[in-house]
Amino acid sequence: MASNSFGNIFKITTFGESHGVGIGVVIDGIPPNLVIKETDIQHDLDRRKPGQSAVTTPRQEADKVEILSGVFEGKSTGAPIALLVRNSDQRTSDYDKIKGLFRPGHADYTTFTKYGIRDHRGGGRASGRETIGRVAAGAIAKKILEEKQINIAAYTLAIGDIVAKTKDFNFIEKNPVRTVDPEIVDAMVQKIEFVKAQNDSIGGIIETVVSHCPAGLGDPIFEKLNANLAYAMLSIGGIRGIEFGEGFAASRMTGSQHNDKFYMDGKNVRTLTNHAGGILGGMSNGENIIFRLAVKPTSSIAQRQATVNKEGKDIFCDIGGRHDPCLCPRMVPVVEAMTAIVLVDALMAQQAIKYGV
Amino acid sequence: MASNSFGNIFKITTFGESHGVGIGVVIDGIPPNLVIKETDIQHDLDRRKPGQSAVTTPRQEADKVEILSGVFEGKSTGAPIALLVRNSDQRTSDYDKIKGLFRPGHADYTTFTKYGIRDHRGGGRASGRETIGRVAAGAIAKKILEEKQINIAAYTLAIGDIVAKTKDFNFIEKNPVRTVDPEIVDAMVQKIEFVKAQNDSIGGIIETVVSHCPAGLGDPIFEKLNANLAYAMLSIGGIRGIEFGEGFAASRMTGSQHNDKFYMDGKNVRTLTNHAGGILGGMSNGENIIFRLAVKPTSSIAQRQATVNKEGKDIFCDIGGRHDPCLCPRMVPVVEAMTAIVLVDALMAQQAIKYGV
Amino acid sequence: MASNSFGNIFKITTFGESHGVGIGVVIDGIPPNLVIKETDIQHDLDRRKPGQSAVTTPRQEADKVEILSGVFEGKSTGAPIALLVRNSDQRTSDYDKIKGLFRPGHADYTTFTKYGIRDHRGGGRASGRETIGRVAAGAIAKKILEEKQINIAAYTLAIGDIVAKTKDFNFIEKNPVRTVDPEIVDAMVQKIEFVKAQNDSIGGIIETVVSHCPAGLGDPIFEKLNANLAYAMLSIGGIRGIEFGEGFAASRMTGSQHNDKFYMDGKNVRTLTNHAGGILGGMSNGENIIFRLAVKPTSSIAQRQATVNKEGKDIFCDIGGRHDPCLCPRMVPVVEAMTAIVLVDALMAQQAIKYGV
Amino acid sequence: MASNSFGNIFKITTFGESHGVGIGVVIDGIPPNLVIKETDIQHDLDRRKPGQSAVTTPRQEADKVEILSGVFEGKSTGAPIALLVRNSDQRTSDYDKIKGLFRPGHADYTTFTKYGIRDHRGGGRASGRETIGRVAAGAIAKKILEEKQINIAAYTLAIGDIVAKTKDFNFIEKNPVRTVDPEIVDAMVQKIEFVKAQNDSIGGIIETVVSHCPAGLGDPIFEKLNANLAYAMLSIGGIRGIEFGEGFAASRMTGSQHNDKFYMDGKNVRTLTNHAGGILGGMSNGENIIFRLAVKPTSSIAQRQATVNKEGKDIFCDIGGRHDPCLCPRMVPVVEAMTAIVLVDALMAQQAIKYGV
Repeated sequence: MASNSFGNIFKITTFGESHGVGIGVVIDGIPPNLVIKETDIQHDLDRRKPGQSAVTTPRQEADKVEILSGVFEGKSTGAPIALLVRNSDQRTSDYDKIKGLFRPGHADYTTFTKYGIRDHRGGGRASGRETIGRVAAGAIAKKILEEKQINIAAYTLAIGDIVAKTKDFNFIEKNPVRTVDPEIVDAMVQKIEFVKAQNDSIGGIIETVVSHCPAGLGDPIFEKLNANLAYAMLSIGGIRGIEFGEGFAASRMTGSQHNDKFYMDGKNVRTLTNHAGGILGGMSNGENIIFRLAVKPTSSIAQRQATVNKEGKDIFCDIGGRHDPCLCPRMVPVVEAMTAIVLVDALMAQQAIKYGV
Repeated sequence: MASNSFGNIFKITTFGESHGVGIGVVIDGIPPNLVIKETDIQHDLDRRKPGQSAVTTPRQEADKVEILSGVFEGKSTGAPIALLVRNSDQRTSDYDKIKGLFRPGHADYTTFTKYGIRDHRGGGRASGRETIGRVAAGAIAKKILEEKQINIAAYTLAIGDIVAKTKDFNFIEKNPVRTVDPEIVDAMVQKIEFVKAQNDSIGGIIETVVSHCPAGLGDPIFEKLNANLAYAMLSIGGIRGIEFGEGFAASRMTGSQHNDKFYMDGKNVRTLTNHAGGILGGMSNGENIIFRLAVKPTSSIAQRQATVNKEGKDIFCDIGGRHDPCLCPRMVPVVEAMTAIVLVDALMAQQAIKYGV
Repeated sequence: MASNSFGNIFKITTFGESHGVGIGVVIDGIPPNLVIKETDIQHDLDRRKPGQSAVTTPRQEADKVEILSGVFEGKSTGAPIALLVRNSDQRTSDYDKIKGLFRPGHADYTTFTKYGIRDHRGGGRASGRETIGRVAAGAIAKKILEEKQINIAAYTLAIGDIVAKTKDFNFIEKNPVRTVDPEIVDAMVQKIEFVKAQNDSIGGIIETVVSHCPAGLGDPIFEKLNANLAYAMLSIGGIRGIEFGEGFAASRMTGSQHNDKFYMDGKNVRTLTNHAGGILGGMSNGENIIFRLAVKPTSSIAQRQATVNKEGKDIFCDIGGRHDPCLCPRMVPVVEAMTAIVLVDALMAQQAIKYGV
Repeated sequence: MASNSFGNIFKITTFGESHGVGIGVVIDGIPPNLVIKETDIQHDLDRRKPGQSAVTTPRQEADKVEILSGVFEGKSTGAPIALLVRNSDQRTSDYDKIKGLFRPGHADYTTFTKYGIRDHRGGGRASGRETIGRVAAGAIAKKILEEKQINIAAYTLAIGDIVAKTKDFNFIEKNPVRTVDPEIVDAMVQKIEFVKAQNDSIGGIIETVVSHCPAGLGDPIFEKLNANLAYAMLSIGGIRGIEFGEGFAASRMTGSQHNDKFYMDGKNVRTLTNHAGGILGGMSNGENIIFRLAVKPTSSIAQRQATVNKEGKDIFCDIGGRHDPCLCPRMVPVVEAMTAIVLVDALMAQQAIKYGV
């Protein structure tokens, strides 16, 4: 249950709607004495916020975070940290025309069917703005990972059929689509501008690489590290698939091709290849953790679409509005945040069972 | 935590090792007055057990289930149902030669690193035999779904690069690979026999279709139906990826192509297409739920492989043994079982929040 | 884990410190379409707030609630409701003198030992103000109970050795100590004024009666209704014991005296007596649920007390400040709130397992 | 939910009915490399089993435990440990006469109302035999506490109005009522024999003292150590109340009497008194943890009692059978076990949040 909470020991609970008072998160289970600055959190929120570039939505939201609790004299105390971002750019009237109908590709119909009531303004709770809470919580999780030198790089691997060939992680924050290949970035931007000009949108692929993760994180049956990452990623709106290491390509490989052979690298156990993507039997093996996410094209497009309304009539809908033509660039920090939360939770769980409790 | 438990309201906890006393499961949260027969459970265990055909492992295990609790005069009472399958075909000595080394592709190394101890016999806890508990629990979950006329079909869609073209669900249990295409089954069997003859193994793809699922199951933020399915599926050993509806293909589509338009089918809201795979915003929309799983090639192959041992020395390992050359045929009932458990849990969660508690 | 959360299906997470930005709560699992007014919540907060009468602390806090999320056009949507009360009367400097020492009877020492850091201002997180979140959440839970005609009456049964003899539930909100006996209220008030004049404090007993609770709430092994109530009550600071029905007196009774005989009251199964306090085998039996709480005397007293400081030196502490000489009057609404939350959670859990899911 | 599970990190799930196949438990979250012998578990089961002396039920049950999983070469592996005790002395026909009626003081009526079905044989799931699983799990928890030198002493403090005056913990296992006062044991035995001769039963009080518990266990808001102990104890059938330290007597004390003053005992922070019972603000303070439990008189008495049946008719019931005339002696090991489980869970939770995760 607790369908707005995520994590077991390091646990977040998000709240808030797109056009309500604000969006927030309560983070429980934070180790004490961690230096927490509002600017650390704001930095990641700024990477997520709308209006960053020509390829994202032109909506302007300050998305300024306020720490409501849990930080005393600049440090975590072990108490829950509540963070609040008040909504500002709320053109609620933009949504009047969709009040009674169900937008294709959105949660409108399923929400109404489930609850018998729906906050139609900007998707209500089922809005990308909900991820503000996750990104804010992830900024704190990342501080814990930093102390362990565990690093997460998430980036746009593909937009439509344009796929990054080389991978320069330092390039990610230097380009508007957050890709890793300087040679391909222009093509990606043009692709987005092209679909936008057609009042359309485009999908893509986000890849994540976790480096310096110690071996042994995650559990062998449930709470597997890959299962938890899959759960975390599929809990982000618009993700249609996840694959680890070779992923779907593994379905066409033989065991002799796919098995990663172990060898000794000095005193360290390593694998010659990394087809498994850094996780064996649900637990990290010390190699890079690698997974890819299928990102669907944005559902909100500025084209007239056939749909139905609450009264059960076929009608057309014109969404209009100001939407991201591609979800990938602004989703990268969300993926990074959720990855960080999963890893911290696994680290804390691992610490709990250490012999000699 | 509770890393051997799955589910929130309908909750299973599995236990047991490959070569220990037995494998079992405790199922909590079962509605009372459900007719439960040992034969219902045995039927699904027989579909999972080894030695069913030439394409599976020749190991022979009776896998006979015993109901330890929770059933009174043939009905569930609301008390937890514990099920136990005692191990029989335990050639423990088969595993003596791998006692001190880490088999490539297996959880040996990660288990030892995490816990500092490892039951090496048949993989110990990290054995496919652990899924006996899941299949047994799934048999009970399926009885609940039957009353709701919700149906699950899981099947082998591909083995290596051989992919089913047509889909005849009635054919699934009539062929040894549990595929849906009568035209392609021979090629699949030959593919498996070919890799087996080479002391090798092969991957594949399992697809699942849930039909007649009511709209509104799953939650909008966490506990999304697709996220829970992804967690459930990635918790099965050997799964390397999952995709819903169009999945990774959606990354190359535009919004106008991908959005499923709503229309009225009499009094029912339906979608013209089903690119989303039956789930919108984390909740079922009443269309078929469709997802595919990437299954890696079996790690246990009868070839000499390079690896390392506990003492940190490079050595070779010869696994020998009697292993499935392809995981798909026997994994189908496991996928079906986990799907059933996720759906029942979502049904019960939905019932809990109904207005007027 | 999740040590700031309470409940399984109807779940609250509280946050905030006594002298931080504010105190709040996120309530998850609220059924949709429930009419929620800020005034409903404010009404209960006003019953809890300081400065209500001569027998409570003279601190003045408006404790004005703001609904941050989850309510749309006056109704719950199924989304989490976040509530925030900003702190106002923060004389932080009052606490400078206790910064480095551990007040007797308080959580100062244990908090510092556990976390290695402590927000000393007003007890930080370990402040009675934390219960604001619980009372606010309880106000919503009570709205659900109202629809079921389930009623909760909590009241001061005793202050020191002065014990209410008669029970007039309508009198509770008409007297400053929230007792039920109009004959004894003056003696109670005088008792409190007497200890206050001596710079001391006094304990008491709170009793709770739940009427019209349907039979069958709570679970038979864990999640017993009485166990959940005990957990809820002991989670309130200052509670030192709980007893149901005859409670400790049952330890001196024989079975023939204590067993409540069943009889038919028309079509209803009733018991002739109610020694059990309305709960049998962890489940409500339809009789009134009755329990009593031992409330310790307020730890903050305006007397010099021996203690130690962070540096491990014996010193004296002078707390000063403005404290309640008796915790009971303002704790009554907290007890009521936690009782309501437990009952709603049990109602929703019961609804989940109903046959035919 | 998960109403047959207890604990967060160290987690038990019990199953089984009084007259079913057997009683068992799955223990999850056990640290690896713990030496676990069947005899350790059997030792505690023998202390709980019926037929130990003239003051307990004359039923004879071997209650022989079988380890089904999780132990490899005599050590825990981190995998769940499942334990099973098969039922033997099942005189099911003894219960035929109560099949259709509701015994006073028992869970018969509430179980039937909740589930619409009831295993009437020996109370079914709502039998004292369910505690076998708890005692078995507690034996493992106690092994972890032993390494930390944390000791638990539970004992019969009172039977009816006969109360122990002196406390010799070494005497507990040397007398049939498990009391601590050699002077009073004969009076207690006579009291039990007296009520038994009258076909009646008697209540009592069990007290528990935990010594050498480190400071800082338990959490400050929910998951308070006292709240968790209260939940654990009230989850044992027949417990009607719990009090910590001074308990209900604190309600009659002033703050100046009740506050435990801190002082330095060498380098250790200690309190001059221990009115709080070793827990401040929900966290252990390093002093002895002390609590008392109100135990009701056994409901099963060999007297004719008025009651009703399933058809809603007033009738009489004659339970007959072989029951404990006082629950205390055999409940002591159950209390000890649940205390151990709560402490281990708190130790592991504390380990998880340590800074530097």
